[in-house]
Amino acid sequence: MASQALIKDFEQFLGPENVFSSEVDRHTYSFDAAVLRPVVPAFVIRPTNVEQLGECVTRLYREGVPMTIRGSGTNLSGGTIPDKTDTVVILTNALNRILEINSNDLYAVVEPGVVTADLANAVAAKNLFYPPDPGSMAVSTIAGNIAENAGGLRGLKYGVTKDYVMGVEFFDATGALVKTGSRTVKCVTGYNLAGMLVQSEGTLGIISKAILKLVPPPKASKAMMAVFDDVQSAAEAVAGIIAAHILPCTLEFLDNNTIVRVDDFTKIGLPRDAGAILLIEVDGHPAQVADDAVAVEKVLKECRAREVHVAKDAAEKTQIWEARRQALPVLARVKPTTVLEDATVPRSQIPAMMKAINEIAGKYRLDVGTFGHAGDGNLHPTFLCDKRDKEEFARVEQAVDEMFDVAIKLGGTLSGEHGIGTAKAKWMEKETSRGTILFSQRLRRALDPKGLLNNTKLVGI
Amino acid sequence: MASQALIKDFEQFLGPENVFSSEVDRHTYSFDAAVLRPVVPAFVIRPTNVEQLGECVTRLYREGVPMTIRGSGTNLSGGTIPDKTDTVVILTNALNRILEINSNDLYAVVEPGVVTADLANAVAAKNLFYPPDPGSMAVSTIAGNIAENAGGLRGLKYGVTKDYVMGVEFFDATGALVKTGSRTVKCVTGYNLAGMLVQSEGTLGIISKAILKLVPPPKASKAMMAVFDDVQSAAEAVAGIIAAHILPCTLEFLDNNTIVRVDDFTKIGLPRDAGAILLIEVDGHPAQVADDAVAVEKVLKECRAREVHVAKDAAEKTQIWEARRQALPVLARVKPTTVLEDATVPRSQIPAMMKAINEIAGKYRLDVGTFGHAGDGNLHPTFLCDKRDKEEFARVEQAVDEMFDVAIKLGGTLSGEHGIGTAKAKWMEKETSRGTILFSQRLRRALDPKGLLNNTKLVGI
Repeated sequence: MASQALIKDFEQFLGPENVFSSEVDRHTYSFDAAVLRPVVPAFVIRPTNVEQLGECVTRLYREGVPMTIRGSGTNLSGGTIPDKTDTVVILTNALNRILEINSNDLYAVVEPGVVTADLANAVAAKNLFYPPDPGSMAVSTIAGNIAENAGGLRGLKYGVTKDYVMGVEFFDATGALVKTGSRTVKCVTGYNLAGMLVQSEGTLGIISKAILKLVPPPKASKAMMAVFDDVQSAAEAVAGIIAAHILPCTLEFLDNNTIVRVDDFTKIGLPRDAGAILLIEVDGHPAQVADDAVAVEKVLKECRAREVHVAKDAAEKTQIWEARRQALPVLARVKPTTVLEDATVPRSQIPAMMKAINEIAGKYRLDVGTFGHAGDGNLHPTFLCDKRDKEEFARVEQAVDEMFDVAIKLGGTLSGEHGIGTAKAKWMEKETSRGTILFSQRLRRALDPKGLLNNTKLVGI
Repeated sequence: MASQALIKDFEQFLGPENVFSSEVDRHTYSFDAAVLRPVVPAFVIRPTNVEQLGECVTRLYREGVPMTIRGSGTNLSGGTIPDKTDTVVILTNALNRILEINSNDLYAVVEPGVVTADLANAVAAKNLFYPPDPGSMAVSTIAGNIAENAGGLRGLKYGVTKDYVMGVEFFDATGALVKTGSRTVKCVTGYNLAGMLVQSEGTLGIISKAILKLVPPPKASKAMMAVFDDVQSAAEAVAGIIAAHILPCTLEFLDNNTIVRVDDFTKIGLPRDAGAILLIEVDGHPAQVADDAVAVEKVLKECRAREVHVAKDAAEKTQIWEARRQALPVLARVKPTTVLEDATVPRSQIPAMMKAINEIAGKYRLDVGTFGHAGDGNLHPTFLCDKRDKEEFARVEQAVDEMFDVAIKLGGTLSGEHGIGTAKAKWMEKETSRGTILFSQRLRRALDPKGLLNNTKLVGI
């Protein structure tokens, strides 16, 4: 069917208000949060219930039309950029119902387009807790979080999205419904397809429903900020906290460049000469929180923290976290292009990784600010540049190349939580093996024989 | 190559001491812990390093010989029974080195044949904690635990094997090495193949190395036993404990039949007229443990526990757990055949499930004792019978059929932790969908095109 006929077909099926084919609409869905070349899709559709979603997939498969599924497009590796100009983008934002929050059995059942923060808030209103907190949670969707295995600040103690997926239903490439997992804590019935859908970046199936694990909320928490003269001391403190058998719910890091930029913009009086700041929050039973806070403070001082500020109340806690919350928005203002990277190393390798990042930035004369989740070794070196300056952007790309080499050499990984998409596919083999690439390609081709599901992402065929 | 020539070939490659082809040896590896017909393999090989393991897979693939990988053969659904009489069994028990226990970064790296308890003990010696504790952990292996996603008593609070697999290396059906996951808490590089290998029952790849997550050990714990007149009250107590936002590390259940049988054998003075016993352990920070114990006791009494016994010391704690430890061994002595089932429901459905189990047992005039992990709804109704009595065994099979129907109707699953194997494959579609079966078959056929890896297990082709 020609594109115009297909558009008509979908307008009839979904209603014209759920098919977007104007020039402006198509350009709106040509990019995501990654710094990559936009690809304008053929048109965009918005099913308004999951049966429609399945039927959309069935029709597109029958016609051999490429599909890219899109939540809120917050992806940082190009996972929601259309593959080609004949791609149809399927939006999940009308599939946003929370179907069940079960306090007895500690799970929630949701449609794919539920916004992460909406779920977290609805769950909190029932005095329960959904821990995954990707930076984009105010707009990101649950199915997007699952497809990318979104992380966040609480990874060290609470894990990532993967750890909260008890079951999913999804449509395979042909539009057939697949059910996997359960409302039970334990389920080994069949392949762990829910685990396989996690971080599959829209290439193996289109999620239509998710069963998510909930936990009781912590009863207390305490936040603190520690100031260090140098990165090495801060990194030693991170190792020391873990060695003391404390798992903070958040253990965040800002380097000097980030500190100065945040202070320039917010004027909150950060120590502009500090080599690094750690922002730490412990949570749990009140007595444990009290003990942990004392133990953390001891480690921080042993590791030469020149200042430790413990928040006395909620207002001070908010203030402490403001510095972290502003890190990315403030860095992003400095130059037109923000290349937000995601190199991740075992936490003991943070000093080596930070040293390498700054040496590489120096070598290529680049402005880099690094912040991130020190507790799980997940750093976000952020290159501030202008992609219209081709010479500079080539230096950024070389720097990123070298940075990944170092991360892999240190026993780390290309991507902690941002995904592979089209942005990092070329480095995959270096971290894994030729066998891994071939195995992954056989896998996806078997499950998507026509190559219609986000075909250029993850491991190209 | 004929079988005799292959045996010679492997004797040359692995040494004759690592190839087992006598009648007795072959019969030794013809069964596992499931009540199923044994299948005598062609011969058995034992690689002594992972390179040999890969080469064994490569040679068998080239020759088109079916392979069943075997740890300790504790499988309860037939996963380690050879597919056919020309199957070669590959043993992992010589690949039993713990390669690394990393206290800074909280992970262990192990070979596939490491015994679960050996790892748990080695980790405990470094004051760390590997929580998964399947009932067979004294002999089961880590790769077996991964391939079956083994559960255990600590599932409710600590999760199951799946939750501790950070990465695996495995040989695909052709013998090519695939690497997935990382030593980092976060890793989204490529498909979550580690998640896919979990509970794949030896059908998608042969695990050669695993990176496992460790956690700090709890600082304190407290065990208690509560006695109830009826199952309903015990089940209400389970729901009440969760509703009070307490996640015990273990929350176990014994029904009257199990209580009487355990007491008959051990003479430990259990309340023989009790309808049910709950065995509960809470762990964590000492203050939290103290608070939780008080809160649990309150719930138990509100739910009509006629007696609550809190262990005062380690000796009393051991005594409390003795009743649970003896449940299966004691039931297994009653009759020649023990059909240990694994129906699992959302925990709020335990009363309905227990009622159905006892009604079904009555209807088919069967002796059933039920114990299990009440906290995660994972019950083990255990039918005591003699499979040589064909008429009786047919009744057992009918009862099991009906029991699964009920579990699915209650929003539960066929198998919480024992696997599908050949034992439960026929019920898979009822719980999931036709699409799920076809999807799973396409998946496995793509990754094992000659159908050599445990081919009759999980979803038959």
